[in-house]
Amino acid sequence: MPPAHNPVLSKSADLLNLRVRYSETDQMGTFYNSRALEWFECGRTEWMRHRLGLSYAALEARGLFLPLVEAHLEFRGGARFDDLLAVSTSAHLAGRARLRFDMQINHQSTGNPVVSGYTIHAFTNATRKPVRPPDWFSVMLDKTAQSP
Amino acid sequence: MPPAHNPVLSKSADLLNLRVRYSETDQMGTFYNSRALEWFECGRTEWMRHRLGLSYAALEARGLFLPLVEAHLEFRGGARFDDLLAVSTSAHLAGRARLRFDMQINHQSTGNPVVSGYTIHAFTNATRKPVRPPDWFSVMLDKTAQSP
Amino acid sequence: MPPAHNPVLSKSADLLNLRVRYSETDQMGTFYNSRALEWFECGRTEWMRHRLGLSYAALEARGLFLPLVEAHLEFRGGARFDDLLAVSTSAHLAGRARLRFDMQINHQSTGNPVVSGYTIHAFTNATRKPVRPPDWFSVMLDKTAQSP
Amino acid sequence: MPPAHNPVLSKSADLLNLRVRYSETDQMGTFYNSRALEWFECGRTEWMRHRLGLSYAALEARGLFLPLVEAHLEFRGGARFDDLLAVSTSAHLAGRARLRFDMQINHQSTGNPVVSGYTIHAFTNATRKPVRPPDWFSVMLDKTAQSP
Repeated sequence: MPPAHNPVLSKSADLLNLRVRYSETDQMGTFYNSRALEWFECGRTEWMRHRLGLSYAALEARGLFLPLVEAHLEFRGGARFDDLLAVSTSAHLAGRARLRFDMQINHQSTGNPVVSGYTIHAFTNATRKPVRPPDWFSVMLDKTAQSP
Repeated sequence: MPPAHNPVLSKSADLLNLRVRYSETDQMGTFYNSRALEWFECGRTEWMRHRLGLSYAALEARGLFLPLVEAHLEFRGGARFDDLLAVSTSAHLAGRARLRFDMQINHQSTGNPVVSGYTIHAFTNATRKPVRPPDWFSVMLDKTAQSP
Repeated sequence: MPPAHNPVLSKSADLLNLRVRYSETDQMGTFYNSRALEWFECGRTEWMRHRLGLSYAALEARGLFLPLVEAHLEFRGGARFDDLLAVSTSAHLAGRARLRFDMQINHQSTGNPVVSGYTIHAFTNATRKPVRPPDWFSVMLDKTAQSP
Repeated sequence: MPPAHNPVLSKSADLLNLRVRYSETDQMGTFYNSRALEWFECGRTEWMRHRLGLSYAALEARGLFLPLVEAHLEFRGGARFDDLLAVSTSAHLAGRARLRFDMQINHQSTGNPVVSGYTIHAFTNATRKPVRPPDWFSVMLDKTAQSP
């Protein structure tokens, strides 16, 4: 069965497929710009589950939070309702206490670019105090870099 | 100065003005349907602040929550980006442990209807256990019924 | 590979799986109420593609639009970030010129109910004039009723 | 009467007040990150109406569109439901065919920063073809730079 309404993880664990929802369009006929940040979140969520091996929900349950501190987006092409998009995600530590996700969203069928950008996240505990990334997290992150 | 981008309370405390955001439109050129529930929330929020005399944030700070249990919407006319809308709100207890808000959204300039409907809310404590509405709440609610 | 971040069509063509996005939560820790209308849209979209055999995008391309005229929602249980939900959709003509979708959203793992409700849609042409459902549409709709 | 639920233009035409909607919060208890792009839109919309003297709706009606091509956001502090925020907007041409908006969102009561950033927009016609900014637009823009 073909990829359905929204994200389906494709063969590369970095790739996620999602369909543009009608609620995500605007009167210009393409997706409204802020939706890209929500798709970046979907990309991060699936990257964590499938590459890091720990869901973001589980991360928060362990008391580790990753609030967004910076985001950058380049809008490179339109995407219409029901278009199937491919979300590509990679992540690495940026400095001692920041996690950076590099994002690329393309049309699944043509490969044409839609949005690219990055998000930078702090590490905090449940009371929003900045913390250094725990060793167990760094170990998990190192392993993602070594996998193909 | 004329009403600006979003809700401004007008003379009648039940009336709130808001402008349709670009992010709230969809490719049909009108507002996307789910935005109406967000506008209903704006109406409730201002009704509480100005009619009940207690903001919903203050209500939650006192440990009283009003989760939505039922909603009904009738879509009666379009509204385009930047259109100025008037949100009319009234509230009363429905049975012993439900609060009902009746909502009406119209074009400010013409009075033409946009959406009408209602939402029904439970009363719960901070751990989401159902509670009876506290006496102080009922007293405040009674007063709103008596004011002009 | 298990169902990923968002809707995946499951065996029954009426069933769609989606995960609660972080952007869909609110400070109560469950999904914000208006998201349910967006999930209803996802259900309709996949129902059309897989049961009706014509995507909603293709329907609009043929000049047939289905604007929402009425919606009803009952909130029956919470759902947290990353919870996997099952969206069940059925549709039938309501009167001569209305299409009604009955919706049921449950937790995929437990079957516990999350939201149920319905939406009622008019048939219009591209200039938003009401039209009767075209014969080809009614024929397609009849076939969905006969399939298992 | 105090500023109500959402944007009210304050004395400086660059300043807009808006309240955080419940729908804009997430389970971390602050606003979800993508809402900042929607608030940037509110800032641009009011800047156009009150500083440029032409609403964005009127701009599109004249056949001039300003699709977003780049956005940058720095998240500098939290904001909770119902917090009153001040949105400050300035704009200038960036190169020959780009319009840049610099944005600053602060808590109205304390001045504490919430989000800052910028958006860069192309000029296009109704068929999304890039165009040079029309003379009448540049004249209007020049006037905003001269006003206090």
